[in-house]
Amino acid sequence: MPNIEGVPVQATGLLTISLPAVAANWRHIGALVGPDCAVAAVVKAQAYGLGAAPVTRALLDAGCRSFFLATVDEGIELRQAVGPRADVTLAILGGPLATGTGLLLEHGLTPVLNDPGQIDSWRRKAAGRPAIINIDTGMSRLGLSAVDVAKLAADPTALEGIALSGVMSHLACPDETAHPLNALQRERFATLAAMLPRAPLSLAASSGIFLGSAYHHQMVRPGMALYGLNPTPDRPNPMAQVVAVKAKILQVREIDANATVGYGATHTAQRRSRVAILGAGYADGYLRAAGNRASVRIGRHAAPVIGRISMDLITVDVTDIPPADLHPEGWATLLGPDYGVDDLARDSGTIGYEILTRLSSRLHRVYIS
Amino acid sequence: MPNIEGVPVQATGLLTISLPAVAANWRHIGALVGPDCAVAAVVKAQAYGLGAAPVTRALLDAGCRSFFLATVDEGIELRQAVGPRADVTLAILGGPLATGTGLLLEHGLTPVLNDPGQIDSWRRKAAGRPAIINIDTGMSRLGLSAVDVAKLAADPTALEGIALSGVMSHLACPDETAHPLNALQRERFATLAAMLPRAPLSLAASSGIFLGSAYHHQMVRPGMALYGLNPTPDRPNPMAQVVAVKAKILQVREIDANATVGYGATHTAQRRSRVAILGAGYADGYLRAAGNRASVRIGRHAAPVIGRISMDLITVDVTDIPPADLHPEGWATLLGPDYGVDDLARDSGTIGYEILTRLSSRLHRVYIS
Repeated sequence: MPNIEGVPVQATGLLTISLPAVAANWRHIGALVGPDCAVAAVVKAQAYGLGAAPVTRALLDAGCRSFFLATVDEGIELRQAVGPRADVTLAILGGPLATGTGLLLEHGLTPVLNDPGQIDSWRRKAAGRPAIINIDTGMSRLGLSAVDVAKLAADPTALEGIALSGVMSHLACPDETAHPLNALQRERFATLAAMLPRAPLSLAASSGIFLGSAYHHQMVRPGMALYGLNPTPDRPNPMAQVVAVKAKILQVREIDANATVGYGATHTAQRRSRVAILGAGYADGYLRAAGNRASVRIGRHAAPVIGRISMDLITVDVTDIPPADLHPEGWATLLGPDYGVDDLARDSGTIGYEILTRLSSRLHRVYIS
Repeated sequence: MPNIEGVPVQATGLLTISLPAVAANWRHIGALVGPDCAVAAVVKAQAYGLGAAPVTRALLDAGCRSFFLATVDEGIELRQAVGPRADVTLAILGGPLATGTGLLLEHGLTPVLNDPGQIDSWRRKAAGRPAIINIDTGMSRLGLSAVDVAKLAADPTALEGIALSGVMSHLACPDETAHPLNALQRERFATLAAMLPRAPLSLAASSGIFLGSAYHHQMVRPGMALYGLNPTPDRPNPMAQVVAVKAKILQVREIDANATVGYGATHTAQRRSRVAILGAGYADGYLRAAGNRASVRIGRHAAPVIGRISMDLITVDVTDIPPADLHPEGWATLLGPDYGVDDLARDSGTIGYEILTRLSSRLHRVYIS
């Protein structure tokens, strides 16, 4: 099998990230929500593991101007990549902790204000700089409570000195379209936001966007959908696939019937078998929970994972693959067109978000741009 | 709560790694196996996530001279950190792939030879340089089969040109002391190794060491035990704890009885409650499977995780913690003396190895040296 262009010959694990697919997904959402609704991008946790800087540059080229991050450190790193562009908002969901306010100001970052103390602190320190208010409408996570909002509304000076650039909340169950909490959160959000000064409203992230236009308001904040995960789990995936992962075949061995495979001897061969040993494991981000459950692709053939996932190795049954299709030191596809992130997540008992965020730096990264 | 020395004020997640504890664990194993058995160190996958370079430097100071890595790239990186020391062996478990042999020679790396093709290739290219032969005795993973070993033994020229520096194998079930595969693998290893030229033998990794001196041979290869995981899961942990993880309390909120918490609304408060929101999540390496199962420590109090783990946030019930013990922007201990890596692994349905290898670079790292 020929080497893959741009990949060091010794690489045993490979992560390919399509930046045009990220941009296409952003434009797809833009077309869905229409021209009166801004489309921000959630690029926290290194753009869900795919690299905040390259993903943000691709989205800037596509026209995106608002980016959401989790921590001040993520904001500082991305500000350095983006430069001091006044037209680009980098919002920090974790809020302006007492210990981080100075850095927010220094690096031109926009805090999401999550409690009355943060609002008061930002008001006193920020001298008219923008901020976004976050209301908790049903996550019991970060954000103002209904009581907090009422107190804020009753105090005309409480927001003096803050350029309120948005009011947001976050849905708990948007991937369950029939969940009653969706409409309840939307109603609470409307009621509470109406008590605050007028500002652009934002409620929906990826799945929320697909709940319909009543959830779009003035800004949507997709994350996972940009990265190719399915925001509509009960329907076919409308997003373009962004990532592919391959691992090199390090060895192919014959084992006898009744031979056991891997740690804990959890797989027993039912017949004389051929096993391919692949150069990736849970340290590369292939969850250990996928052992004995997931499958990989070699050429056009599927090969089931047998035995437990090791730290650096995966064992797959290739008995039914013609030897001519098993190239020594060829590549097996762990994530690709026929078996994507959501498939591996299902077979690992988790969600695609966790698969993406744990793809490790040991995988050699190739960005398609 | 005062800031922690050496930690940026804005940090919301913190990973502390005790290098003296790693060295103490290495010495503990040395005392256990005695002076006639070398103690190597497995530092692949960035020393199980803790940093291959700092861990290796600490172990070099303690006297360790043999280090095992998974890939050629890991070997090159560590060789650059260690320098061209002829007394230090860096062994590559993944073997000398056709595509990586030149780099092994260039960087003074010792391959583990896993199949006849690799042996033949190394013999022709390596001009007397050392290598280790790996025999598969029951993992059905990398290594020579019994048939391969017999063929090798029958051909007096097969190893000409290789300085055989060791013969190794790897146990599948050493953490299950009564598993019959342990003795079977040991016997197979003795039989097959006896057919090869005389060289130091190595079978046991961390748990195998605790199966007794019959498993020690001339070298043991601990990994997880160096990093404080329990190699004897049915007995108290004999190793010193190496890692601690803390997350900052971003907000404390009151929620009503019957309020739901987090994605999917999987937790419902049974009473009026206080919830602390912590600044770490599955993107930091706290497995999503720990949702509604694990617990954290705040001061001397335990607080159960409620709801699903988010990408960047963890919600814990702090209703029973006196408010005076809940310092705003204080730290919660996710992994520490009272609840260690093996505890979180149990509550996440996995093993400590996976917890360690997924601790992400977003956690601010502090090395105690």
